Amino acid sequence: MSIADTPVPAPVDLTIAEVRLTPILVADPPLLNTQGVHQPYTPRLIIEVVTADGVTGVGETYGDTKYLDLARALAKRLEGHRVDGLNALFALADEVHVDAARVENSVDVGGLRGVQTADKLRLSVVSGFEVACLDALGKATGLPVHALLGGKVRDRVDYSAYLFYRWAEHPDGAGEPDDWSAATDPQGVVEQALRFVRDYGFRSFKLKGGVYEPEREIAAIRALAEALPGKPLRLDPNGAWSVPTSLKVAEELRDVLEYLEDPTSGTANMAEVAAAVDGLPLATNMCVTTFQEIPEAFTKGAVQVVLSDHHYWGGLHRTRELAAVCRTFGVGVSMHSNTHLGISLAAMTHVAATVPQLDHACDSHYPWQTEDVITERLAFRDGAVAVSDAPGLGVTLDRDKLAALHQRWLDDDGTMRDRDDAAAMRKAEPGWTAPAVPRW
Amino acid sequence: MSIADTPVPAPVDLTIAEVRLTPILVADPPLLNTQGVHQPYTPRLIIEVVTADGVTGVGETYGDTKYLDLARALAKRLEGHRVDGLNALFALADEVHVDAARVENSVDVGGLRGVQTADKLRLSVVSGFEVACLDALGKATGLPVHALLGGKVRDRVDYSAYLFYRWAEHPDGAGEPDDWSAATDPQGVVEQALRFVRDYGFRSFKLKGGVYEPEREIAAIRALAEALPGKPLRLDPNGAWSVPTSLKVAEELRDVLEYLEDPTSGTANMAEVAAAVDGLPLATNMCVTTFQEIPEAFTKGAVQVVLSDHHYWGGLHRTRELAAVCRTFGVGVSMHSNTHLGISLAAMTHVAATVPQLDHACDSHYPWQTEDVITERLAFRDGAVAVSDAPGLGVTLDRDKLAALHQRWLDDDGTMRDRDDAAAMRKAEPGWTAPAVPRW
Repeated sequence: MSIADTPVPAPVDLTIAEVRLTPILVADPPLLNTQGVHQPYTPRLIIEVVTADGVTGVGETYGDTKYLDLARALAKRLEGHRVDGLNALFALADEVHVDAARVENSVDVGGLRGVQTADKLRLSVVSGFEVACLDALGKATGLPVHALLGGKVRDRVDYSAYLFYRWAEHPDGAGEPDDWSAATDPQGVVEQALRFVRDYGFRSFKLKGGVYEPEREIAAIRALAEALPGKPLRLDPNGAWSVPTSLKVAEELRDVLEYLEDPTSGTANMAEVAAAVDGLPLATNMCVTTFQEIPEAFTKGAVQVVLSDHHYWGGLHRTRELAAVCRTFGVGVSMHSNTHLGISLAAMTHVAATVPQLDHACDSHYPWQTEDVITERLAFRDGAVAVSDAPGLGVTLDRDKLAALHQRWLDDDGTMRDRDDAAAMRKAEPGWTAPAVPRW
Repeated sequence: MSIADTPVPAPVDLTIAEVRLTPILVADPPLLNTQGVHQPYTPRLIIEVVTADGVTGVGETYGDTKYLDLARALAKRLEGHRVDGLNALFALADEVHVDAARVENSVDVGGLRGVQTADKLRLSVVSGFEVACLDALGKATGLPVHALLGGKVRDRVDYSAYLFYRWAEHPDGAGEPDDWSAATDPQGVVEQALRFVRDYGFRSFKLKGGVYEPEREIAAIRALAEALPGKPLRLDPNGAWSVPTSLKVAEELRDVLEYLEDPTSGTANMAEVAAAVDGLPLATNMCVTTFQEIPEAFTKGAVQVVLSDHHYWGGLHRTRELAAVCRTFGVGVSMHSNTHLGISLAAMTHVAATVPQLDHACDSHYPWQTEDVITERLAFRDGAVAVSDAPGLGVTLDRDKLAALHQRWLDDDGTMRDRDDAAAMRKAEPGWTAPAVPRW
């Protein structure tokens, strides 16, 4: 006697019938970092995969032209592939020729992601397709994306307030205005933080540093500590400091910092700082951005928290794998963010919900984005995003909004299609070049 | 305008309505290892989870009474849990009290799995539930288990022939007879290997060693190399040798071995051997059996191939995580096996199909098992098992067979319910005790 299980679901055809790539330009405020300032518009790529059954999944990744070119080549290879074939995407991407001369040793994402390589580029493109496939697979089967990753272990994911030094508006009033004030001193940073608390309930706070001399940024963190006593604070100068400067800042702020993020550049320097500032963890999204960089960094004790960006790391499954490597070696894990829209925030939230040892609130630029391509933006309440149990990512593409942002990309004369924070800074400071590190 | 995706699947209720635990005794041949000999019957536990919609998923794990006790306690906590809540199973298992005095520092699985701990016990029990939940989730959504793990990257999974020194029958003719001859010398081992080639097409060969003095086992490997020229060979004495003996064997067999498995016991000894036998990889399923053991072993270079057993490691998702840790550190990965049935072989095959860098054929005892609890046994063709694309694991429980093997467990006077290879050996050699290591 054999047992046949009762309800057998109707077979679904998970073959990819169509892939749509829509490059867009998204408004971005004049947020400052050590390389320069955010452009008025930043490129993103919206990826849709449509199954033979007509289920559409959406993904989002970096949209600079080198990503777009690779995505177009990969999209052609996806014909006949299935949306449940996620592990096989990497081999498919490896088959796509990347013009090494154009990619290798170039800088990327405003210069804040370290040296670009063909492999990193491939992973960032695969991640957008992986998320789109997961969304489609979830919708086709009725499962939320977190269930396709083994299931959530929490119902809400905490995010931190991502504080930036910023101007009130872009040079020459370019771009889309927003209702935030300038923040270039401690008082401005505190006011920004307090509005983040009022509007979103954030309970931990990260300041993007490396913009002004360290003493001025130390003063800003001190002011935050006074205004928000006991709240976890973080400072991230994007590797702009020397080892001695890093140690000096660490010493001055160790009593109020949850962690110090990328104080200095390179694994050797990070290891030197980490060894000397016993008790203050170092976090990174620059020194460890690929699996290849992990063995040296972990065995040298260079980093205590890895901030994963699922775009960099190759998607949500790879992010879970990174979390497992970190857990194995006693290294903390949280999430990095760059300018992104609601699709990526949903993806981050799903994967973060499945990682047991998520000990730090995740970073997100999302509150700075006034535009989106989904019908209902995700909301931060008490500093957290609720984990959706709807099929797929739980977001719905808004085609009108998508079309408008794509039209902006079509209309652009090419100056915004590749993010370059130093070029944007030259509008305010002619002759500006991205500073060499260490800057201080 | 927003886009509603066309076909929305009917909602499925993935809540666990019932859990069935069926301990069984499975016939096992008189296979020899350094601890003793396999019992005539070995305990296994068959786990069924039934969803509110009536979908049944099956899993399998170790069945010794301490596993069974923990599984019963965990089963009670699964009420209201969902079959897609896999990551949450670990926290549920942590809530179950384990009698430390009964578990800690005891040996396990015939003494071949190192020191038992409450954590290892929990993981081995969770793995059975995880596989059952994955099977149910796959059946409920129409997805094969590999698709729930990110999708297969191969259509067939290679297995190795698992050669054992063995007797023709158990002492006093106990247990179920089979049609294999005794194999206690090089000629017997070669004949066994040749039959494995004829019956299953295996193309790589592992000999379970540590049974006889090393010279006799070296002679067996040499005979295999002559009979099967160019085929990958492995020898596994289960840690029975000293460092000098390991080095001597490695030197004599390095030209024909694919890898040497657990020649000696403990990370320090393995590292010493590995450092001295440059070019011959060491594999393990004893020195690294938990994530906690990885950092020391990997940073010391003690092992070059980790043989994962998804039962030990906590299931299929954890096995994928292990594979990611190995890949990150340039360590190979393949699969270990202990006496198991078709449910576990199906689970192994699904997860193995999703691991990109599976560079070595997996081990499986399966050909030695004449009994099973599924309607159609999995087949090795050309040494490989085809990856099933059917929903879930792709196996069907045979309730008559299950009932018969359970009846055997009920009828047992308790002597077979806990595997003890040394006790089994005493039937042939009164006064036998499991040898201390190093044995040679």
